Amino acid sequence: MSKKPLILISNDDGVTAQGLGVLTELMRPLGDVIVVAPDGPRSAASCSISPLDAITVKLVREQAGLKVYQCSGTPTDCIKLAMDGLLEKRPDLVVSGINHGDNASVSVHYSGTVGAALEACMKAVPAIAYSLRTRSQQCDFRPYEDVVVETARYVLGHGLPEDVMLNVNFPEVARLNGTRICRIGRGRWMKEMMKVGEGEYRITGHFLNLEPDAADTDYWALDHGYASITPIQLDMTAHTWLDELKKAVVSG
Amino acid sequence: MSKKPLILISNDDGVTAQGLGVLTELMRPLGDVIVVAPDGPRSAASCSISPLDAITVKLVREQAGLKVYQCSGTPTDCIKLAMDGLLEKRPDLVVSGINHGDNASVSVHYSGTVGAALEACMKAVPAIAYSLRTRSQQCDFRPYEDVVVETARYVLGHGLPEDVMLNVNFPEVARLNGTRICRIGRGRWMKEMMKVGEGEYRITGHFLNLEPDAADTDYWALDHGYASITPIQLDMTAHTWLDELKKAVVSG
Repeated sequence: MSKKPLILISNDDGVTAQGLGVLTELMRPLGDVIVVAPDGPRSAASCSISPLDAITVKLVREQAGLKVYQCSGTPTDCIKLAMDGLLEKRPDLVVSGINHGDNASVSVHYSGTVGAALEACMKAVPAIAYSLRTRSQQCDFRPYEDVVVETARYVLGHGLPEDVMLNVNFPEVARLNGTRICRIGRGRWMKEMMKVGEGEYRITGHFLNLEPDAADTDYWALDHGYASITPIQLDMTAHTWLDELKKAVVSG
Repeated sequence: MSKKPLILISNDDGVTAQGLGVLTELMRPLGDVIVVAPDGPRSAASCSISPLDAITVKLVREQAGLKVYQCSGTPTDCIKLAMDGLLEKRPDLVVSGINHGDNASVSVHYSGTVGAALEACMKAVPAIAYSLRTRSQQCDFRPYEDVVVETARYVLGHGLPEDVMLNVNFPEVARLNGTRICRIGRGRWMKEMMKVGEGEYRITGHFLNLEPDAADTDYWALDHGYASITPIQLDMTAHTWLDELKKAVVSG
């Protein structure tokens, strides 16, 4: 077995997405690469899994240091399948993306790109999600390549704290103004359902930034030409409210 | 328009699930009730949405103070559709469940029951997710009815902090030992993919509790016959690691 680092890649735009291809080529100099990605678009799959379905997987490309599988499931299914069924050893790093569309602010909750990285994090594998704020399926990813490679190298070398992953977002610019470490900004999707027929709707909507002037948020960074790097944790407990709740509610 | 509180209900087990029916009957004395639930099981839907599909909705039951809609989408789609397309005013409370199966520890990330409540939370509506640790689709919910009604009444009366929801789990017992305010316990699903054919898998697995002796966790509460009430927040930023990351990574 190779002594190089093993890097597992997934995404939510599907195995043929340009961003996945770019991420794969960027990771190959860093280690052996296995791609396990959905067989079609799974945008907004969040951390969903497919407990009711058979999940099929097919090897679609193999060459020295690279295997690419397509999977009928969600991004999270892909990571579970890779780690429990396909890989001969634990990966040293999981990277997800590069998503076509940003995953800043509350979009972290809907994102299958982030979902795949969270799944790796739950399995104690260092993980990074990469996303580009774009509406296009064909993009120039060259302005972001250095940040992708540097962050992956950093995490391969240093690891990440327990139960923490990185969420990296890029603005669509010819040249980044720099990189910023950010918290998740507060925001909200508005007017999300468009009636298209009797009892029939489609998802649409626009994003409302609830703190547009907060320069420490991921959304601000993207709005101002910076790449955002946000550490995300598995623990969603509202710790600051635990004691207040204990006083408020009768507790056994 | 009625002056009673408006309570919106959803779930991930589908509109015909027993737990949804029980929750609906428990909420009716507290206000006007609108149910918008998936037309079939959407277990483990997480916060997923359906941006690629037409979402259809149908009124399947109507009587004084109650309307029930079934929807072709996910639990999160149901909440979006209710708030953007079906309701005439903002709900005062969103409740989700009662799920057949617990949503403690990392299962909060996969749960469509929690996903529906998180969606309400993102839209600034107080929300509670209810789940029962059971493998059965037909259960005796009577031991949990008081806690369901009390928590809903409390939240209707007092609201919840901004960007926080409640995740309530019940153990399957004849009589609860009490109610505990808990943090989310650390855990991990193991050996989750079962090979059922050539290139074909099904989701299975068992849960590993990484801190079985931690009496402040949701998982411990369920293991010891208590209902757990866990405040969950939208913000997944790993705040304690922001400064360390700023030192570690070159920041623009």
